[in-house]
Amino acid sequence: MASPKLAVIVLAAGMGTRMKSALPKVMHPIAGRPMVSHLMATVAGLSPDKVVAVIGPDMEVVAKTIAPIPTVIQAERLGTGHAVAQARAALGDFDGDVLILYGDTPLITRATLDRLLAERRGPRDPAVVVLGFRPEDPGHYGRLVVGAEGLKAIVEYRDATEDQRGIPLCNSGVLAMDGKRLWSLIERIDNKNSKGEYYLTDVVALARADGANCSHVEGDPEELLGVNSRAEQATAEAVVQRQFREAAMAGGATLVDPASVWFSWDTVLGSDVVVWPHVVFGPGVTIGSNVEIKGFCHFEGCTVADGAILGPYARLRPGAEIGEAAHIGNFVEVKKAVVEAGAKINHLTYIGDARVGAGANVGAGTITCNYDGFNKSFTDIGKGAFIGSNSALVAPVRIGDGAVIGAGSVITKEVSPGALAVARGSQMELKGWADRFRAQQRAKKEG
Amino acid sequence: MASPKLAVIVLAAGMGTRMKSALPKVMHPIAGRPMVSHLMATVAGLSPDKVVAVIGPDMEVVAKTIAPIPTVIQAERLGTGHAVAQARAALGDFDGDVLILYGDTPLITRATLDRLLAERRGPRDPAVVVLGFRPEDPGHYGRLVVGAEGLKAIVEYRDATEDQRGIPLCNSGVLAMDGKRLWSLIERIDNKNSKGEYYLTDVVALARADGANCSHVEGDPEELLGVNSRAEQATAEAVVQRQFREAAMAGGATLVDPASVWFSWDTVLGSDVVVWPHVVFGPGVTIGSNVEIKGFCHFEGCTVADGAILGPYARLRPGAEIGEAAHIGNFVEVKKAVVEAGAKINHLTYIGDARVGAGANVGAGTITCNYDGFNKSFTDIGKGAFIGSNSALVAPVRIGDGAVIGAGSVITKEVSPGALAVARGSQMELKGWADRFRAQQRAKKEG
Amino acid sequence: MASPKLAVIVLAAGMGTRMKSALPKVMHPIAGRPMVSHLMATVAGLSPDKVVAVIGPDMEVVAKTIAPIPTVIQAERLGTGHAVAQARAALGDFDGDVLILYGDTPLITRATLDRLLAERRGPRDPAVVVLGFRPEDPGHYGRLVVGAEGLKAIVEYRDATEDQRGIPLCNSGVLAMDGKRLWSLIERIDNKNSKGEYYLTDVVALARADGANCSHVEGDPEELLGVNSRAEQATAEAVVQRQFREAAMAGGATLVDPASVWFSWDTVLGSDVVVWPHVVFGPGVTIGSNVEIKGFCHFEGCTVADGAILGPYARLRPGAEIGEAAHIGNFVEVKKAVVEAGAKINHLTYIGDARVGAGANVGAGTITCNYDGFNKSFTDIGKGAFIGSNSALVAPVRIGDGAVIGAGSVITKEVSPGALAVARGSQMELKGWADRFRAQQRAKKEG
Repeated sequence: MASPKLAVIVLAAGMGTRMKSALPKVMHPIAGRPMVSHLMATVAGLSPDKVVAVIGPDMEVVAKTIAPIPTVIQAERLGTGHAVAQARAALGDFDGDVLILYGDTPLITRATLDRLLAERRGPRDPAVVVLGFRPEDPGHYGRLVVGAEGLKAIVEYRDATEDQRGIPLCNSGVLAMDGKRLWSLIERIDNKNSKGEYYLTDVVALARADGANCSHVEGDPEELLGVNSRAEQATAEAVVQRQFREAAMAGGATLVDPASVWFSWDTVLGSDVVVWPHVVFGPGVTIGSNVEIKGFCHFEGCTVADGAILGPYARLRPGAEIGEAAHIGNFVEVKKAVVEAGAKINHLTYIGDARVGAGANVGAGTITCNYDGFNKSFTDIGKGAFIGSNSALVAPVRIGDGAVIGAGSVITKEVSPGALAVARGSQMELKGWADRFRAQQRAKKEG
Repeated sequence: MASPKLAVIVLAAGMGTRMKSALPKVMHPIAGRPMVSHLMATVAGLSPDKVVAVIGPDMEVVAKTIAPIPTVIQAERLGTGHAVAQARAALGDFDGDVLILYGDTPLITRATLDRLLAERRGPRDPAVVVLGFRPEDPGHYGRLVVGAEGLKAIVEYRDATEDQRGIPLCNSGVLAMDGKRLWSLIERIDNKNSKGEYYLTDVVALARADGANCSHVEGDPEELLGVNSRAEQATAEAVVQRQFREAAMAGGATLVDPASVWFSWDTVLGSDVVVWPHVVFGPGVTIGSNVEIKGFCHFEGCTVADGAILGPYARLRPGAEIGEAAHIGNFVEVKKAVVEAGAKINHLTYIGDARVGAGANVGAGTITCNYDGFNKSFTDIGKGAFIGSNSALVAPVRIGDGAVIGAGSVITKEVSPGALAVARGSQMELKGWADRFRAQQRAKKEG
Repeated sequence: MASPKLAVIVLAAGMGTRMKSALPKVMHPIAGRPMVSHLMATVAGLSPDKVVAVIGPDMEVVAKTIAPIPTVIQAERLGTGHAVAQARAALGDFDGDVLILYGDTPLITRATLDRLLAERRGPRDPAVVVLGFRPEDPGHYGRLVVGAEGLKAIVEYRDATEDQRGIPLCNSGVLAMDGKRLWSLIERIDNKNSKGEYYLTDVVALARADGANCSHVEGDPEELLGVNSRAEQATAEAVVQRQFREAAMAGGATLVDPASVWFSWDTVLGSDVVVWPHVVFGPGVTIGSNVEIKGFCHFEGCTVADGAILGPYARLRPGAEIGEAAHIGNFVEVKKAVVEAGAKINHLTYIGDARVGAGANVGAGTITCNYDGFNKSFTDIGKGAFIGSNSALVAPVRIGDGAVIGAGSVITKEVSPGALAVARGSQMELKGWADRFRAQQRAKKEG
């Protein structure tokens, strides 16, 4: 049997005024990517036949972020029913199932959507399936009135009787609908209510008036967290981070202080990784097995091979590729550079646009001078080379395999394999100068 | 109608032996300033006519901190009633209202004090208004016995009946009193009790014996936290930090991990600021709008203009003024320096006693050598200058607009605008030296 | 009266498959040392006459860690009764008391073990004393059935009646036994149960069948946390850290944000120490009094004398000895070096294998070049010396007392006391070069 057809409408037009931000609400990130992208990734997992997102005016950034998903613009904000109606031309007549989701409810899971669709496709053949939830404080949420025959009504809080207000089952807004009945229901929603808005929730009453069934399934309140303020964003972030931390530990990583480790949505950790306190994994990080991350590290866009030792205070930026058993130590920044197996860069160093050959040792205070104000140039450090401390390697420059650079050198020319290169001034001494200088300075201060 | 007169007596003589500190208890900081200063700031908001603080002997540091508020010394610690009595000469006869507050209860709010004073000035005309609270664990606090006629008594826990111990309403010690009756009540407190101390709480019984009314208002237990140990200090700090974090988010800042961000009492954040995990705002920090703070940053005494990008691992010290859209990167310290708009200081750099002109680029590993052991000198980097990596700029020195400094240079003399300056040794190479050195070392180790 | 004899059997053979680690479970650390070492330290406090640990095959690392405690190998994992039986040859006949403990239950306290032994040695003369506990969720733990005559039985959850499952008192597995009856009980344990394993808990039923008494004492659920997964490891770590933080504060340290400070099991703090947020104390750290630790610091294997000021971003590695009132500032690493009283190393510096004399000032960006790829060499900086910024000191090298090193120098030869030494290239300038370079680059980009 062919799988039933599926369309998804994502409502993402909300301005999010409580965010107090110039950025559209759904662009605010959770775990390093816009919340709308989280939702879109979950939607993609359903392999829908069609997806349409309804966005507000001046939200090109959202359209660009979710491209190639088509977007339609809700020019005026006249309610959720009106928002869904904007998707009609883009979606057209659709005889499968239609999910209606929200860009600011990014934590909803695939499993919940599967349950919603299973109910929609089940024996009741409901025109509308509503996703309900039981929040700790039901507050002013709409309530679901459920009877033996399924979902009887969604009652807005302000219209609810005292008894209805006592119902713990609330409306999340998320719906699965029968596509064949969708537009007939949507077009009959009116705005005869105190706010003068078109409420999507009216579809339940309309469907029941048509004699159709409605029903509901329940979701986890945590995954239905809506993000309308920075505080709610922080709460959603905390939920996701807790999940990531638990998953990392279940996968065999030691998080010495889990609450101090921050993951991005796409962080990959190998087995027997040890993460000390205070580590930030930005987007695009893959860490191999048996890696020790000593704390106060900041990574993004990098890969780290097995057995490497990192930090404390190591910063790996995009394009850093750290080889097997390599060491990256304190106050070291690596950007767009391949550090081969066993190489050591232990202290106060900047490596950018470079290769550090296998087994090379880069001394404290080494700087690859990769930028002249216009161009970035490459530094190539050969296998087994030894870069003396406090050296500057002025790119483009190549240090041969096994070469040694004397401490404090400024290297501007290629160094042959196996050679020693030194580039520094010669030392001269003025005996007694310091004593005289101090005497002079003291006299000046006193006099 | 003229506003009623107000005097405030602050009791701050407690030694705080449980703090185990050489520093007087009320000098221990919360959110970056002494707890007594928090209280004094709240007191100042009431615009009182008179304020007197009662301190202990050897607490000059407290007197200095709260100056010009006058202090009187309680030479012997004979109880709270005795402490208040010490203020009599300084305060004199006072026919307004008198608030009695505690230096180690720093979180009490203006709103609570306003309610306390409103009750004092209300129709009951109470001689004494006590601030009560309902702690989660009432423990050994004194209890407020309240009847239809108002506050009947404060019962110490050890003197309370089993029924009275069941009263959840506790005594915070904070009082508003009628100044006209104050000294007459205070002078009648005796020390005929098991501890031989003069208890301020006795004023309730004395006032009622005079036929005067007493009453109470209730405060939030959280704001009545008394700090008697480092653990209680940490608890008070956590309360304040939570308030600051909530306020920052409500004001339109993203705190990616709120619990890892530490604010000072005077931190100012613009809108659409993003704060990544692990950031410390010391005192005196003002951040503009659209600033990104990448984590692991430490700021104090600095201002940051709109659109700047900071960190990770940026340290801004007092006198750092970061211009619009400037970048301060990792392992960079800026002290007493103006970094103009669009300038970039991205890696492993120390800028102290300096100006960095608009659009200038300061390479990795640059050091302004501002100190010779006696004097601090100034480094002036012109607009659009390019400082090659690993350079030392020996102050006093001026780099002209648009000048370029070659990497690895030690600059001791002024550089003309638009010039290139280089100051480094020339490179020489000994071919095969490194290979021979290694062979020799290996032979030594084996032999 | 001589103290009764005591033997301890520690069961540490569990593979810990849920840890998903190549490292034996009991080797995973809590507060910086293997959990089995925590337990062994507690055991050592009891001054037992004999200790034997039962480990698994391929666990040499455990044997090595707990040496000289003898270990026996449980080749096949046939249950806890079987594990204890493996210790028979090593322990032999023993007429004192025998404690049976678990390597993966590292938080058990001396006080609890004392209570267990006191009960064993008490008037009941129980053959077996079981340590019970009341977890928040008793789940599938075995239950202790207790009557007037003492402990009647340990019932496994799966064999328990509904009533027995309602018993909140659970079996921790920890036992104190009468050594004289130990082996007679152990050898009668059989494996006639659904899992085909020899259960140590059967000793209770066997003892009672012999007519002997059994009894129990209760322990704190928190100290009986068993560690079977990384998440449980993190939970145990959190318990220990909370204890350490409370102890530090009770001892007179200010922890500005206690949850962000991580201690090792052996961290020592003096009085009036202030620890700002985000500090990691690795093993082997001793901090004096009146020390300020400014946050983002990482310490291990170091000592810090009174009045020192550290950080932010100071890294002290093994062998760092920081003298009285010395300052170690941001992005500074100190390894195997004595920094004498009053010396200042404030910015972006690496000091390794060195002495920094009293009152010396080490400028920003200074590097001791202590390694040539084969040997580590020593740098000796005299009292009151001034090391200009961005200098490289190429070890072995000695800087005399009071000497001054010019900024940006590479020092390879000894510098006399009181002298000035400079080793840098001389500055040359190409006027207009930078302007021409920029014009050229712009033309290239446009053309």
